[in-house]
Amino acid sequence: MSALAGMLGEIAGVGADAARGGFSRAGYSHADRELREWFTAHAAVRGLDVERDANGTLWAWWNPTGSTEPAIITGSHLDSVPGGGGYDGPLGVASALVAVDLLRARSFAPPRPIGIAVFPEEEGSRFGVACLGSRLMSGAIDPSRALALTDREGDTFADIARRDGLEPDRIGPDPRRLDAVAAFVELHVEQGRGLVDLDRPVAIASSILGHGRWRVTIDGQGNHAGTTLMDDRRDPMVAAARMIVEIRDLARRTPDARATVGRIEPVPGGTNVIASQVRFWIDIRHPDDLITAALVSEARDLVLAAAREEGCRADVREESLSPTVDFDLGLRDALQASLGDVPELGTGAGHDAGVLASAVPTAMLFVRNPTGISHSPEELVEDTDAEHGAAALADVLQGLASAGAEAAFGHRPMMAR
Amino acid sequence: MSALAGMLGEIAGVGADAARGGFSRAGYSHADRELREWFTAHAAVRGLDVERDANGTLWAWWNPTGSTEPAIITGSHLDSVPGGGGYDGPLGVASALVAVDLLRARSFAPPRPIGIAVFPEEEGSRFGVACLGSRLMSGAIDPSRALALTDREGDTFADIARRDGLEPDRIGPDPRRLDAVAAFVELHVEQGRGLVDLDRPVAIASSILGHGRWRVTIDGQGNHAGTTLMDDRRDPMVAAARMIVEIRDLARRTPDARATVGRIEPVPGGTNVIASQVRFWIDIRHPDDLITAALVSEARDLVLAAAREEGCRADVREESLSPTVDFDLGLRDALQASLGDVPELGTGAGHDAGVLASAVPTAMLFVRNPTGISHSPEELVEDTDAEHGAAALADVLQGLASAGAEAAFGHRPMMAR
Repeated sequence: MSALAGMLGEIAGVGADAARGGFSRAGYSHADRELREWFTAHAAVRGLDVERDANGTLWAWWNPTGSTEPAIITGSHLDSVPGGGGYDGPLGVASALVAVDLLRARSFAPPRPIGIAVFPEEEGSRFGVACLGSRLMSGAIDPSRALALTDREGDTFADIARRDGLEPDRIGPDPRRLDAVAAFVELHVEQGRGLVDLDRPVAIASSILGHGRWRVTIDGQGNHAGTTLMDDRRDPMVAAARMIVEIRDLARRTPDARATVGRIEPVPGGTNVIASQVRFWIDIRHPDDLITAALVSEARDLVLAAAREEGCRADVREESLSPTVDFDLGLRDALQASLGDVPELGTGAGHDAGVLASAVPTAMLFVRNPTGISHSPEELVEDTDAEHGAAALADVLQGLASAGAEAAFGHRPMMAR
Repeated sequence: MSALAGMLGEIAGVGADAARGGFSRAGYSHADRELREWFTAHAAVRGLDVERDANGTLWAWWNPTGSTEPAIITGSHLDSVPGGGGYDGPLGVASALVAVDLLRARSFAPPRPIGIAVFPEEEGSRFGVACLGSRLMSGAIDPSRALALTDREGDTFADIARRDGLEPDRIGPDPRRLDAVAAFVELHVEQGRGLVDLDRPVAIASSILGHGRWRVTIDGQGNHAGTTLMDDRRDPMVAAARMIVEIRDLARRTPDARATVGRIEPVPGGTNVIASQVRFWIDIRHPDDLITAALVSEARDLVLAAAREEGCRADVREESLSPTVDFDLGLRDALQASLGDVPELGTGAGHDAGVLASAVPTAMLFVRNPTGISHSPEELVEDTDAEHGAAALADVLQGLASAGAEAAFGHRPMMAR
């Protein structure tokens, strides 16, 4: 077993979900804290200095020369979707630690700092907004809106952040920290079949599909399932069901679109009770941001029409919206130069690297997933592919850290402040 | 405020559900135990002997003459649907206690025992089978099947019953106890608008609609919402949505039918995750048991066809099935004799009285609900109607308890053993 497989094995019991299969590691949960302790311990063993910033991101620093140049950052996240796989997030974090080991074994002393970042709440499983940590750091979400987000228990992000040791007043954009980043490279398990089809272990990311999340709330009339005649009903469950089918059909007839409803919550949720309210979430993605906007507009019309026909009221609220990201071309060239002939692949999955692309030059490496399945216990990475990925990350970090301040990669994007 | 309103006021904080509104008092929960203690204390104040039988039903006995004749039983339940009203169940229990007070104020000493029964898990909100206590006592559910039922946390009824002080080995049919019951009369808030339309405070029940519950489990392929093309999906949420609409349409085109989906649970239930499994529950009711059976058969065909078309597999499992109940004609005549001119109304709601009708002569009284809404925080009973109901129950108990052993009411049905 490789060092990488051994490290992932150490956390195989953390947040294991017997009911759903796979792992449920919500942000700021007990499992999340255990994973952060695991990371901090591994960083400490390697003599890396670990700090936690105001937005809850962990940073482990390797800077043998004491350089004050902008740093090369790698890393990923440790939280998961409910019942997710074991690689989405942790593979990038563990590979970053192993890449440091590989570089040291090569006696490489980076002439500028190398940092490993662990971003919180990447999946948005707890507060509904994906990449919450990187959005806060880069100013892509207003801190007051973020602090008011609630989880399933009704606790606000402000409450949970405070309980987790953060100071809500200090949460928000961190331009000083971003200015100290020369480039960010995230390694991640591929969440599709691109590398399987190409029969290759590793790819460089070209782009991330634009995507967003909308919360639909449908209010009807709660009542008794036995005593209420069919014609007297205003049943938000039937309205929701019509919407879910119509949204799927809309996505099907729009080339390259994806639309998904994976979460639905009837209130009160009793077998013998007509629901008074049903909430569900729509995830919409398309490479063309104008078409994403048109899809959302059409989905909203479908929702409102179905609600009206069922005698219900519906409200559609945007929870997050991210444009399509094309990763920095100069940085992609630099990665190609380090890795030789490596394929480039786009992805439909969102990542902190996509959010940070608005503020710093970012790139991604994907590692082959033989099942092509992700956000599921069936997600998989072969040990040899994982080693290949960590070695590629080490090569990339070495190449980028060696480049002078005048390096060709990345014209610095304007930060959205 | 009447004594009845005061008693219900004492439990207004128990199981109050801030998120859903109304009350969430699941069977065997902390709230349920508090309500049982409230009942036991009220029985003790009145000098009634309280016992808990092997199936968890509480019995409070009033037997001033020490008679060994079969008893007249009244009562109801204290558990609720999630986010239910405050009258469904507790009104019948509180009215029974007040009826004893009224009879004592009249210096009536019943020549045969009067008992107040509080049946557990009437709503089936926890283990999925409504009227679990009365079903167990009357043999309408096999004890081994009941003990294997699981709640949302995956705990079995056997586990929870044991934790609640019951002995799983002793749970099951109790013919000895049923033999000691001459008649059972349950008072209940009306769960429709019958009495509102008639402008009357109280009615006698004529019948209960046949009904059943089926659990549908749809297995598809969990995957990432962004990376999985629409044509590559086997999404059980879309399959479930199609089924929910088709089942509603089926009920709409079948006169007198009701079909409801009020509970749905996607697994894993993440916004950015195509579900791997979706479970939902169908509640179907019709006055004609043959049509109920035909509806279920047609619903099953619709479910299997929709699953197939979406590339999923579906399983439909019966959780409970109760035929239409026409309440005992002799007992209804006896109630009419005690109450004078009182309307008779059928209901679509299930009750312990409906289950027990297979084993003992049973009857019901309904009290007006001005909103006509039930299983919802909007359920309501006016104070004066509640007093009217308790007085009617006292009259009925007095009439039945005074009748000789050869009383005209009720030929004893064969018990299903």
